[in-house]
Amino acid sequence: MSIPNTPDLASLIDAKKHREIKDIATNTKAIDLAEELEELGQEQRIILFRSLPKDAAADIFSHLSPDTQENLIELLTDPELAYIVEGLFLDDAVDFVEEMPANVVKRVLKNASEETRKQINQLLQYQEDSAGSIMTTEYVDLKEEMTVDDAFARIRKVGMDKETIYTCYVTDSVRVLGGVVTVKTLLLSQKTDKIGDIMTPGVICVNTGDDREKVAEIFQRYDLIALPVVDTERHLVGIITVDDAMEVLEEENTEDFHIMAAMEPSDEPYLSAGIFKLAKHRIMWLLVLMVSAFFTGGILTHYESLFSAFPALIAAIPMLMDTGGNAGSQSSTLIIRGMAIGELRLSDWFSIFWKELRVSLLVGSILGFINVVYKWCLSGDLTLALIVGASLCITVVFAKLIGCMLPLLAKRLRFDPALMAAPIVTTIVDACSLSVYFWIAGKVVGA
Amino acid sequence: MSIPNTPDLASLIDAKKHREIKDIATNTKAIDLAEELEELGQEQRIILFRSLPKDAAADIFSHLSPDTQENLIELLTDPELAYIVEGLFLDDAVDFVEEMPANVVKRVLKNASEETRKQINQLLQYQEDSAGSIMTTEYVDLKEEMTVDDAFARIRKVGMDKETIYTCYVTDSVRVLGGVVTVKTLLLSQKTDKIGDIMTPGVICVNTGDDREKVAEIFQRYDLIALPVVDTERHLVGIITVDDAMEVLEEENTEDFHIMAAMEPSDEPYLSAGIFKLAKHRIMWLLVLMVSAFFTGGILTHYESLFSAFPALIAAIPMLMDTGGNAGSQSSTLIIRGMAIGELRLSDWFSIFWKELRVSLLVGSILGFINVVYKWCLSGDLTLALIVGASLCITVVFAKLIGCMLPLLAKRLRFDPALMAAPIVTTIVDACSLSVYFWIAGKVVGA
Repeated sequence: MSIPNTPDLASLIDAKKHREIKDIATNTKAIDLAEELEELGQEQRIILFRSLPKDAAADIFSHLSPDTQENLIELLTDPELAYIVEGLFLDDAVDFVEEMPANVVKRVLKNASEETRKQINQLLQYQEDSAGSIMTTEYVDLKEEMTVDDAFARIRKVGMDKETIYTCYVTDSVRVLGGVVTVKTLLLSQKTDKIGDIMTPGVICVNTGDDREKVAEIFQRYDLIALPVVDTERHLVGIITVDDAMEVLEEENTEDFHIMAAMEPSDEPYLSAGIFKLAKHRIMWLLVLMVSAFFTGGILTHYESLFSAFPALIAAIPMLMDTGGNAGSQSSTLIIRGMAIGELRLSDWFSIFWKELRVSLLVGSILGFINVVYKWCLSGDLTLALIVGASLCITVVFAKLIGCMLPLLAKRLRFDPALMAAPIVTTIVDACSLSVYFWIAGKVVGA
Repeated sequence: MSIPNTPDLASLIDAKKHREIKDIATNTKAIDLAEELEELGQEQRIILFRSLPKDAAADIFSHLSPDTQENLIELLTDPELAYIVEGLFLDDAVDFVEEMPANVVKRVLKNASEETRKQINQLLQYQEDSAGSIMTTEYVDLKEEMTVDDAFARIRKVGMDKETIYTCYVTDSVRVLGGVVTVKTLLLSQKTDKIGDIMTPGVICVNTGDDREKVAEIFQRYDLIALPVVDTERHLVGIITVDDAMEVLEEENTEDFHIMAAMEPSDEPYLSAGIFKLAKHRIMWLLVLMVSAFFTGGILTHYESLFSAFPALIAAIPMLMDTGGNAGSQSSTLIIRGMAIGELRLSDWFSIFWKELRVSLLVGSILGFINVVYKWCLSGDLTLALIVGASLCITVVFAKLIGCMLPLLAKRLRFDPALMAAPIVTTIVDACSLSVYFWIAGKVVGA
């Protein structure tokens, strides 16, 4: 791999080697330079930022952390700020405005052109996590009656500031989306061909209010590099580009990882999150699960006389609880993930149930048998060994069936299946497995 | 959203309405049509497939499941098969050849042109999960001495069959990669400009042997739509397109989900995987964790006299084990995911440790306090309540510190941090929490 290494910027800045700095700035990718900039002190930062080529400054600015952006804005003059705001892609400008405190936002909008201010305000109105919230209004639009030559002229005229020029959108006089035409098609057509004849009608598009998760799914399904966003009357209002879709995909995955580990999801970077916020995101679920576990404790209290008489029963509890939890979370993870990537559907529920039943019987029998041998060798008590082995086998079967059915049930009830992951499955399986264990033990030993 | 609905294809096929079928086939996206095709019976399938426009057939074929592909190939004549193979993008052809049994591969390669056969064989040699294994050799290459006009002529000539034409690669006489030029740049340049003057040198590229995970990271970091792949001498050998990078990203995420739930990762679809294979992927980890839990059981046996004398101690075991496990897996998930998306690094270990220590003290104290109140109200035994509350608080602190440090340790030792997720953390935390609990109880009650 060859991401270029930049020399020590800080020392170049201190030595006021402006030409070398400019050289580096020109030859380094925006995101790499943004990372370098984050590491610098406040004074060095503004010197570097001011020595950037003007068209690169906005790009680099969009890759900075909100803290650094805010800090930098305080040091910029109004005309400099205006230049940055106008240079940002609109979706980046909106992301940035969303993160800033009110007084900064006021200053930013004051320095934006009226047109930009209007567009930013409009984009800010879309609900979080909606297609509208991640789209940009910068795209190339064409008309059906244009020729290929007209289209190229238009792309050359407006293309410089657009996020993508490779997919152009064909709209009618009232901006209703009629078709798309790619630059590839334009290049392979005759100069005099009419756009209306070469465009692809029946465009795949999303509504402004659609969930961004759906957006990522469509990108993956149809291998797109841009996706148009329309309002309820099918007016074209914006586009989403593949880099944003990829970001959504990663954020949605992170959200699933967090939910599946019983946390409220958060897209705030770990290192900058305060400890009260981190604690808040974790404690609610821990509390709910803890209270549920009180109930499991109640089962043990119920059988107190049994294990008082046979204390050897106790030693198997951690093994039963852990194995049940692990077996259940394997199944729930497979099903949750399978549904998330569109491989499994609700209608597959019986195939899933039947498959998990057979797998769990197989796995449960093997683990149960190993337990019988181990316990028998260890304690010489075959009855105890058989009780533990049988309980484990039943536990594994229960765990896998609960683990695979709960996410499907959640989906059916329109909850997020990711909620039904390891932590909840484990808690439920624990109660089942201990009940089974002591019930069997009670029957055998009590008899 | 507007993915077009296709009418009932099966009945159209049975009614031999060839024109309607052709209409639908022309107006439906390849992947949607592939899904329809999967649902059809064998006879209908081949009828539909033969009525497809020739250039669409290969595209649709590449979206079919391996089973359907194999089944379809058996029904195709040699010339039909040759047409499909030549029509596939090379990376799709390789994916497909990799899934087929030997006799089918033989027939496929026999019907491919010599050039295609050579390229497929070459691509097959790259290691699984390497950049080489996901690249395609179909790209547009330009020379520095060409003009913009020459470049457009070349794109028009070779572009039709290339996966992307929007990024063109500039190579010298021995195919060493010298720069890239986008179609956007070409469009915004003068017709007589030299490619060497307008290209971007210092291209970001990967080596054939680099891990595909790295490929996905680079795509995300630099918002690319294509990435060149070079050999050790920097000869350009292929490109990877953003749709493949997105697929890699999803597969890598799925792998992490599976590993974090203590399963061997598998990219075989759940519904087509056999139960022995599913069981095999799960049992090894269950076994290892089960044997580890025997050890935890040993701790309980060690304290048998203690809980025989005070059986009320037992009731808190599930709550301690579950809460410890949940608290630990919250932390390990945050750290594993943070490292996976490049937000956390090994060098952050002390900030992480310090943050988790404070969060765990906060969360542990609150949960511990609630437990004291609950136990006290329930049993009226303040000593027991305090023992449980203190043990829980210590358990949560242990759990979060173990949970955050184990993935970092794994990373340091060059193991996959995802291995150090909930299942292992839970097992280790269980042993710690029960030891702490009975040790405290022993000290207090024994005194």
